[in-house]
Amino acid sequence: MALVDILHMNSGSGDSSYTNNSLFTKIVMQKTAPFLKRTIKGMANKDILSDHCFMIADLGCSSGMNTLSLASNIIDIVHEVCQENNRKTPQFQVCLNDLFGNDFNNVFKLLPNFYKTLRKCKGEQIGPCFVSVVPGSFYGRLFPDESLHLIHSSYSVHWLSQVPEGLENNKQNIYIAKTSPLDVLQAYGKQFQTDFTKFLQLRYEEIVHDGRMVIVFQSRSSLDPTNDECSTLWELLIMSLLEMLKEGLVLESDINSFNLPFYFPHGDELRRIIEEDGSFSLDDIDIFEVDWDQHDMECNNRGKKTTKSIRAVTELLFSSHFGNSIIDMLFKKFEKKLADHLATKKTRHLD
Amino acid sequence: MALVDILHMNSGSGDSSYTNNSLFTKIVMQKTAPFLKRTIKGMANKDILSDHCFMIADLGCSSGMNTLSLASNIIDIVHEVCQENNRKTPQFQVCLNDLFGNDFNNVFKLLPNFYKTLRKCKGEQIGPCFVSVVPGSFYGRLFPDESLHLIHSSYSVHWLSQVPEGLENNKQNIYIAKTSPLDVLQAYGKQFQTDFTKFLQLRYEEIVHDGRMVIVFQSRSSLDPTNDECSTLWELLIMSLLEMLKEGLVLESDINSFNLPFYFPHGDELRRIIEEDGSFSLDDIDIFEVDWDQHDMECNNRGKKTTKSIRAVTELLFSSHFGNSIIDMLFKKFEKKLADHLATKKTRHLD
Repeated sequence: MALVDILHMNSGSGDSSYTNNSLFTKIVMQKTAPFLKRTIKGMANKDILSDHCFMIADLGCSSGMNTLSLASNIIDIVHEVCQENNRKTPQFQVCLNDLFGNDFNNVFKLLPNFYKTLRKCKGEQIGPCFVSVVPGSFYGRLFPDESLHLIHSSYSVHWLSQVPEGLENNKQNIYIAKTSPLDVLQAYGKQFQTDFTKFLQLRYEEIVHDGRMVIVFQSRSSLDPTNDECSTLWELLIMSLLEMLKEGLVLESDINSFNLPFYFPHGDELRRIIEEDGSFSLDDIDIFEVDWDQHDMECNNRGKKTTKSIRAVTELLFSSHFGNSIIDMLFKKFEKKLADHLATKKTRHLD
Repeated sequence: MALVDILHMNSGSGDSSYTNNSLFTKIVMQKTAPFLKRTIKGMANKDILSDHCFMIADLGCSSGMNTLSLASNIIDIVHEVCQENNRKTPQFQVCLNDLFGNDFNNVFKLLPNFYKTLRKCKGEQIGPCFVSVVPGSFYGRLFPDESLHLIHSSYSVHWLSQVPEGLENNKQNIYIAKTSPLDVLQAYGKQFQTDFTKFLQLRYEEIVHDGRMVIVFQSRSSLDPTNDECSTLWELLIMSLLEMLKEGLVLESDINSFNLPFYFPHGDELRRIIEEDGSFSLDDIDIFEVDWDQHDMECNNRGKKTTKSIRAVTELLFSSHFGNSIIDMLFKKFEKKLADHLATKKTRHLD
């Protein structure tokens, strides 16, 4: 089976699960809320708000509560916009998307309470809201032609459709690193351009005329992708792996053949790809910073929660390549290195 | 939490799972295929086949391969009808529905192969097919207004929305039995009428004009619901429970307060409710027989597979009332009683 058929954030609701380690994405969601509001308000004078059902897609929704909180926020904003414009609030269809292996059962368990809260808070003011799940890669078609009014995706479109080809020279690295040769940087950039262009073209087919798309990326401020802000976390991971190589716990050939399938674009890169493709016009790019370790602030053991977040997101990639047996040790070493790093330097994500 | 929020067929793909014990419903599906074909062919001269996306709902899809086989059959028939009528085959949206606790993850694992087979067998002849999941009770709204073209449900609508009220006199029974007083029969019949009427009214809101609904029930040929054909399986289960009562393994009060939440209507009852409600007009009622133990035929240990089927469907109801500890023993006793029964008498389901 292709990795795309089985890849997922850590399942369930246990200690290592994505559900219990997704505070970071929750913080990102809070930061992007004003942007989302501005976008929906911008749709107020469009006819699409008169459609009887407002279709929302959350692409790469994963398996926690965040995706339902997002749906609830969007419903609130659309309702507010409709009231301001003396329109009847439409029915809502919320389509949650992630890969086939995602733990959707965990989302479904949260739904009875989501519906109860919605009824309690909104009562009869809004028409019914229907939540559905559409599993599959967003690098393929997911929805019928011209069916979606608002497409949202947070922290997902930096995942590539595959590990770029031509990374043979990225030995003893697992992502773009300071020691990566230029062809590795180019291979990652090219894969992102191919994937993101395809993503835009597919969504163009699925979105209604005058629909809107809000995508939240992890991006970079430096034009140089080997800059510290982009590479530190992954350099700490490769350092942990190289330590395990010395200890005879992993094979050098396994490290040399492993690379992570994501890419953090610069704002200018995004702008250029969107303009070159032409499927969508760009309203706005907002850039904000989020501390990696924001959720470690009140924790005595700094780095612990960040390690759990990184593990929840990447564990399957490492375990499917190196085997399950190295995982605990890998993230134990990573946590220590991260704690040492955080003690001396503050590091941020740019979104 | 309400039972409706957690109820599901047995999850996963293990020995007791619904997935591995759903041959019976597969046989039922094969028997109903000609009826489905006739229904879709009856839509040929309607404008709805010109819509760009044909929306199919399978209500109570459970977690095995059957629901995807059904989708594949429907797509084949619609494609054939379109070709016969020189129409372009539409895109398809297949909406799978079951309760929140259903193991949808298990269905999602089957999807990559489903899509591959579809592409391989149908190629470019049909537009894309999109599979989505809509969790929730079909006794509530599930889909936006007038969105569905074909609603299908097999072996699901005989599940009631709740155990009927007023069954206090059904002591030492767990369903309608020969010793049940008349008010118990009436309470079950009334609950079914209430639920099925609501079901029809809700689907009426969701189906497009000229849409069709195909529902497969387990029904009964006798007007008397205490007739052997309806009650044998459940009488064998109560006999097993009463044996465990004697052995001190279950409490009498637990048996007296337990009743199963389903009902197998007579064809006349269905016809009357549909006519009284008036949301839908009835095209046809087809009645056919399926041997309970059809899948036990080639098995030396008769009753074994039927026991697993019944267990896959009812285990959660028993375990949530009596506790997990009685389950293995209960179905061991049931299997023995069923084998003895099958050795002397052939028993059939009427659908």
